[in-house]
Amino acid sequence: MSTEGKPKAIPQATLERMATYLRIVSDLDNLGTERISSSEMQQIAGFSAAQFRKDLSYFGDFGTPGVGYSVKHLRQRIAKIMNTDHTHSVLLVGAGKLGSALAEYDILRQQNFHIMAIFDTDPDKIGRSVAGITVHSAEHIHDVNKCICARLGIITVPVDVAQQVANQLVDSGVEGILNFAATIIKVPAHVKVRYFSMKRELALLAYFLEHPFDECLEAE
Amino acid sequence: MSTEGKPKAIPQATLERMATYLRIVSDLDNLGTERISSSEMQQIAGFSAAQFRKDLSYFGDFGTPGVGYSVKHLRQRIAKIMNTDHTHSVLLVGAGKLGSALAEYDILRQQNFHIMAIFDTDPDKIGRSVAGITVHSAEHIHDVNKCICARLGIITVPVDVAQQVANQLVDSGVEGILNFAATIIKVPAHVKVRYFSMKRELALLAYFLEHPFDECLEAE
Repeated sequence: MSTEGKPKAIPQATLERMATYLRIVSDLDNLGTERISSSEMQQIAGFSAAQFRKDLSYFGDFGTPGVGYSVKHLRQRIAKIMNTDHTHSVLLVGAGKLGSALAEYDILRQQNFHIMAIFDTDPDKIGRSVAGITVHSAEHIHDVNKCICARLGIITVPVDVAQQVANQLVDSGVEGILNFAATIIKVPAHVKVRYFSMKRELALLAYFLEHPFDECLEAE
Repeated sequence: MSTEGKPKAIPQATLERMATYLRIVSDLDNLGTERISSSEMQQIAGFSAAQFRKDLSYFGDFGTPGVGYSVKHLRQRIAKIMNTDHTHSVLLVGAGKLGSALAEYDILRQQNFHIMAIFDTDPDKIGRSVAGITVHSAEHIHDVNKCICARLGIITVPVDVAQQVANQLVDSGVEGILNFAATIIKVPAHVKVRYFSMKRELALLAYFLEHPFDECLEAE
């Protein structure tokens, strides 16, 4: 399983967990924690220690079993795997309350995601400044992105314009969209969409209110 | 596998997908779509059709194979399974930009999650009104929740006070926390925490910028 280099056919579930491990080791590193064992990761992440080791094994060797992992080393390695070891430009469409809050969320900038341009369809918002960035008309996404060449976009517009905005982002060269609008958007096969849904997250918490003693480790 | 009634030992991964299916059928229902096949679900959710059928099978019979599923029926059934077929009271701690944006996010109310009280530690915010709700001092979480009896809480405070706020929520009776603060919080075993991390979501999109042709179906 140790195949250093470009990995192929990594299961989506593994990638999702890798992104979670990255969040965790980043937070631990920021807290000053130096080492983590796979059983500690099990406690924090809720996935089994065996699952953690199996997931890492897709991407090569990560350390000696039994002695735990260097948090800093894990963070660097997983960041490289996830392609977040360098800066990505991001377009944000939707300068409402949520979009403005996200634009000012400096954690993103620390994590190499830089919001380089903000767009809206509302004439009242266009021309204003949000988090120090001028809001452009969504009509100009394509033109503005000719200079920025962002490949990632965030959608925080109302449901009824989300598809149109997604089309404009894709036309401008965006290949990955984080969608906060509570609707499904259709994109070409080369584009990935992630949905952030509070109701989805709260539904998972609501489930456990009625099933507090369920074992929650992966059963793979 | 068809065991109607209280399901036991459902894998975490299945629950995560069930919550995603619920988001999708809710969105489809709102768009007026009446039926969905498991292969259509595969296209929308990114999990295989076989995975979808297997996940549903944990919870009983959902329809005749080959003819697809009623979207409305799926929505009702999965909402009941996830315990979102009735109203949940929610406490929100952190009346900053993100918290305020979330408090005004009426999608939540439509989905039976009602934010009943808002708290903050900042004296400038206490006493103000956000989304029509007065902001209380975080010191009073326990007292206020004696009346509300909320079992769900949302944390949108800065990293350095997130653990303290989590402790206060748990002391007041909260058993499920949606944490937007970019740090790990420790809670007793009977409490569940979900983390929302933009950097995690963007890391997954960043991965696919370098691996656009990866197959993304579950490999379970």
